[in-house]
Amino acid sequence: MSASLKQLSWRGSEVEMENRVYIVGAGPGDPELITVKGLKALARADVVLYDRLAPRELLKYSRRAEHIYVGKSPGRHSLSQEEIISLMVQYYERGLNVVRLHGGDPFLYGRGFEEVVELRRRGVKYEVIPGISSIYAVPERYEIPLVLRGVASSIGIATGTEDPKKGRRFVDFKKLARAVDTIVIVMGSRNLQNIARELLDAGLDPNTPLAILRAYIQPETKIITTLQEVATQDLNVESPVVIVIGRVVSTSSVI
Amino acid sequence: MSASLKQLSWRGSEVEMENRVYIVGAGPGDPELITVKGLKALARADVVLYDRLAPRELLKYSRRAEHIYVGKSPGRHSLSQEEIISLMVQYYERGLNVVRLHGGDPFLYGRGFEEVVELRRRGVKYEVIPGISSIYAVPERYEIPLVLRGVASSIGIATGTEDPKKGRRFVDFKKLARAVDTIVIVMGSRNLQNIARELLDAGLDPNTPLAILRAYIQPETKIITTLQEVATQDLNVESPVVIVIGRVVSTSSVI
Repeated sequence: MSASLKQLSWRGSEVEMENRVYIVGAGPGDPELITVKGLKALARADVVLYDRLAPRELLKYSRRAEHIYVGKSPGRHSLSQEEIISLMVQYYERGLNVVRLHGGDPFLYGRGFEEVVELRRRGVKYEVIPGISSIYAVPERYEIPLVLRGVASSIGIATGTEDPKKGRRFVDFKKLARAVDTIVIVMGSRNLQNIARELLDAGLDPNTPLAILRAYIQPETKIITTLQEVATQDLNVESPVVIVIGRVVSTSSVI
Repeated sequence: MSASLKQLSWRGSEVEMENRVYIVGAGPGDPELITVKGLKALARADVVLYDRLAPRELLKYSRRAEHIYVGKSPGRHSLSQEEIISLMVQYYERGLNVVRLHGGDPFLYGRGFEEVVELRRRGVKYEVIPGISSIYAVPERYEIPLVLRGVASSIGIATGTEDPKKGRRFVDFKKLARAVDTIVIVMGSRNLQNIARELLDAGLDPNTPLAILRAYIQPETKIITTLQEVATQDLNVESPVVIVIGRVVSTSSVI
């Protein structure tokens, strides 16, 4: 903890000059869907640690910064969460402004909260800047509302990473099916068929409309089908997708 | 449908000049939490129709525009949804760019989707620009994650506007209690006590942590309590608040 930027704040008035780690949500993929606050953090960044799903076009707003890829991709060496935190702390302690750029929102199925815990523990100054989550922005892109007066008042959001057939589970899709009007599944492409079967077992109408969506990143995908169709065939959908199940899906195409 | 801006697009190349209605999410209250795309729409607006919860500071980015308040407030005449749509269409047909500025996100418990339906029906060109929703941004502000590895994998979001004691209901809090790890209730300040009782009846632990939160708008509120406490006393909380129920609430204060 040495740098000259730090010293400015010790002298009192220039508190704004203190460096920070900014945990920033980049939004769903369109670079213009980052917040103004997020863009400002990028503009003053010395180092940007960016995720796989954070749009690369945003890096041009931090041209003078060092850009470090910290996402995971198949067949490429990726940094562990500990290594990422260690990098953030190292740069921060050199007096630099660090932006940790997450796809979507940092806390919604991202690692932003875990990062906050570690930064707080180490006495690092940080700020969290939320981002537009694809959970609702992707359906919205296709004009599918998750709630709608007279049609749907509640939303259940769950990860689809757990195979319903295997081991210990956190998400009970059977109960979810009976509790909410609209179900949204993220990271569910691999287990979609088993999840659909589970929802049918729970008593959901086989004709319940189901949307498999990707927007703001390529290739865009919009599959409108039914629970029954998904349960009876392996669609082999490429991730990431947002899956929406419920009457709201057909509301959109009917109008 | 007459204006000169329209004619430009008829000649072919200047498609970008076509006027539109922009359905824009302003975010949770901090003006810098609007998206860059939303801010750009404001900058080119001729008319801005703004909601009660859209931050007024944003209007300065559309100084040359006419600003029309369309929110509802107690004791003040407010426009009906039909009147709002009629205004949007009138200004659009004069060749103007119209921004309809919603608090939060336009589709998440807003009327954005209904507006899209009406605009589409009338052949109006429009664009939907999502906004940061307070549903997750307000808990995030207090470092309460809605999901967390090993603690919570699913989220149930519901309106609390329906009194569980009365008439036809869309939200079944008993089922919700058993189906998800984290419950988020919006517009729930008035019925909070009855909802808490319902959740206890469903078998939720009386010590389940419960947060009542307001952020980005004044006065900021952070009440951390338990389901039991809320069920046994009338807290008389002023709206709007975001209510979070589940283990994630205490995860934050423990660390």
